[in-house]
Amino acid sequence: MGSANPSKYRIVLDAMGGDFSPVNEVIAAGEIVKNHPEIDLILTGDKQAIQKVMAEKGISFPEANIIHASQKIDMSDSPVAALKKKPDSSISVGCKYVAEGNAQAFVSAGNTGAVVTASTFILGRISGIERPTMGTFFPNEAGVSTIFDVGAFVDSKPQHLLGYARMSTIYVREIYNMPAPKIGLLTVGEESEKGGKTIKETHGLLKDSGLNFFGNIEGRDILKGTVNIVLCDGFVGNIVLKFGESVPKFLKTLLKDYASKSIWNKLKVLIVRNVLREALKPLDYQYYGGVLLLGVKSVSIIGHGSSTPLAITNMVLRAKDCIEKEVVKKIEAAIAESPMKETE
Amino acid sequence: MGSANPSKYRIVLDAMGGDFSPVNEVIAAGEIVKNHPEIDLILTGDKQAIQKVMAEKGISFPEANIIHASQKIDMSDSPVAALKKKPDSSISVGCKYVAEGNAQAFVSAGNTGAVVTASTFILGRISGIERPTMGTFFPNEAGVSTIFDVGAFVDSKPQHLLGYARMSTIYVREIYNMPAPKIGLLTVGEESEKGGKTIKETHGLLKDSGLNFFGNIEGRDILKGTVNIVLCDGFVGNIVLKFGESVPKFLKTLLKDYASKSIWNKLKVLIVRNVLREALKPLDYQYYGGVLLLGVKSVSIIGHGSSTPLAITNMVLRAKDCIEKEVVKKIEAAIAESPMKETE
Repeated sequence: MGSANPSKYRIVLDAMGGDFSPVNEVIAAGEIVKNHPEIDLILTGDKQAIQKVMAEKGISFPEANIIHASQKIDMSDSPVAALKKKPDSSISVGCKYVAEGNAQAFVSAGNTGAVVTASTFILGRISGIERPTMGTFFPNEAGVSTIFDVGAFVDSKPQHLLGYARMSTIYVREIYNMPAPKIGLLTVGEESEKGGKTIKETHGLLKDSGLNFFGNIEGRDILKGTVNIVLCDGFVGNIVLKFGESVPKFLKTLLKDYASKSIWNKLKVLIVRNVLREALKPLDYQYYGGVLLLGVKSVSIIGHGSSTPLAITNMVLRAKDCIEKEVVKKIEAAIAESPMKETE
Repeated sequence: MGSANPSKYRIVLDAMGGDFSPVNEVIAAGEIVKNHPEIDLILTGDKQAIQKVMAEKGISFPEANIIHASQKIDMSDSPVAALKKKPDSSISVGCKYVAEGNAQAFVSAGNTGAVVTASTFILGRISGIERPTMGTFFPNEAGVSTIFDVGAFVDSKPQHLLGYARMSTIYVREIYNMPAPKIGLLTVGEESEKGGKTIKETHGLLKDSGLNFFGNIEGRDILKGTVNIVLCDGFVGNIVLKFGESVPKFLKTLLKDYASKSIWNKLKVLIVRNVLREALKPLDYQYYGGVLLLGVKSVSIIGHGSSTPLAITNMVLRAKDCIEKEVVKKIEAAIAESPMKETE
């Protein structure tokens, strides 16, 4: 394995991560081997379970690229405890492999808290960054925005939010080729004092930051696309994200009720379903390819627990994109150039 | 005016409140006079402006039921300052009229902060209640839920959230004839400690409260209808509410993009629009009739700034419903029976 082709992107995929692991991960791996020769993919996880899926699905994948990990962290496991109790988990093994310089990126659809914790402690934080952050792409009327933080941490001090803003500016700039992404601070009113002490202080820090700070925004601005980066703490971000993700399911139920009223309604809903499926495609997280954990020393991509093979493939491609664009190196350079004050 | 028919519901409507005042208010008033003889409606506001709209629209309304107020609080006014600087505003005049016992309810689509502040100070808080709260009806897959608080206050201590839970339980029970509405505490995970100190403490208080506490819920549970009452602080509630309200507009834009791609798409979108309009009716705030400010000594109904005449009519009918069901008296009795600890 040490004989990696240096021109290739070496990426570790956690095969035991998602709700449908290792099946969806193995299918994605087969797809990547076939269609992306520039990627040198490594799988971590239960070798026997992985090979069983390969045999069943007729997928060929180089055996040498499977790194056995005897343990699996479940979705319900408490992150810190699980990492201690399961030192040979696919997440720890994969992160260590990257930390030792054998690969450039780690990708997982597993327990988010565990991936955040393992990445932070095993890959290591970027010097000057107190807290890593995790954002999500969100479609809006104008295209796409990102929302930071969506659950790496439930509360944030102004200084943390400033850090998220600085890191996400580089991330969005590189990924979307957007020279100066516009940042909005999520609160309950446009005035700078609306939202209390934390918002007021963060507003002040952002104003003086040299970043492209638009000002305060409200909940309605997220889908409107008023800004490119929506800034909030992980508590609010996670609630908004999960609420947003539940909207298509809600629409489906409303339409079902409508269809049940008459045969004529039923026929109309058939058309509506097809159109909505097409029109709502921008909402489909599968195409966004997971999110980069910002603030750690290597690329760490975190995906949805229910990731499909397509979503997992796109997560690996996102990792490749981040390696290619040297996002981590650029964040390190920006923070080193203008270090952040540590809080307390 | 003192000679009110005691069998009637006497309700004061702020004619200068909403974004389209006094036009929408006067149209609603005309509609109520015509179709709801059981309601004795009073309008507060600029008498001349009100009568001008009446003349223009051919609406007849008893002149004796217009109480002149020379000032108007604008949407952009800071609530506390506006109430001090404009003592003769329609909001202050209306609240005082109710506080003096001349009517049973105050209804306004005006500056929310000003209505909350005026109601709290002029109508007065219920003894034992530290903070009034304002919830909103939210459609869900199973019917409708309410979310408290949606912006009366941006932060809440555990004790405040417990108060919201107690008051909203009575409100939802009376309005929806639901014996023991199920309460969920909005956070980022189902486990009792997910979300930090405030969530953990509130979880403990609710568990011991004797209320029908379901436990912690996540953002995706709101539209799913896991619970009848979604409990959160006003910061989170306001962001979720405004995000939710922006969904239909977002869908409209997505459909417009889809329609622009071909004539065939355009035809399909015509059908989709009609179906969605019908299917999304439960989402239309106009039918919810504003929200009761819980914790003050009389009925105070707060509506959306952009309220249509239909929405305003429904707000007045909601006020009638609250008077009829003696919601305020029932909250007073419940708090008196088992007083709340004051915080700090």
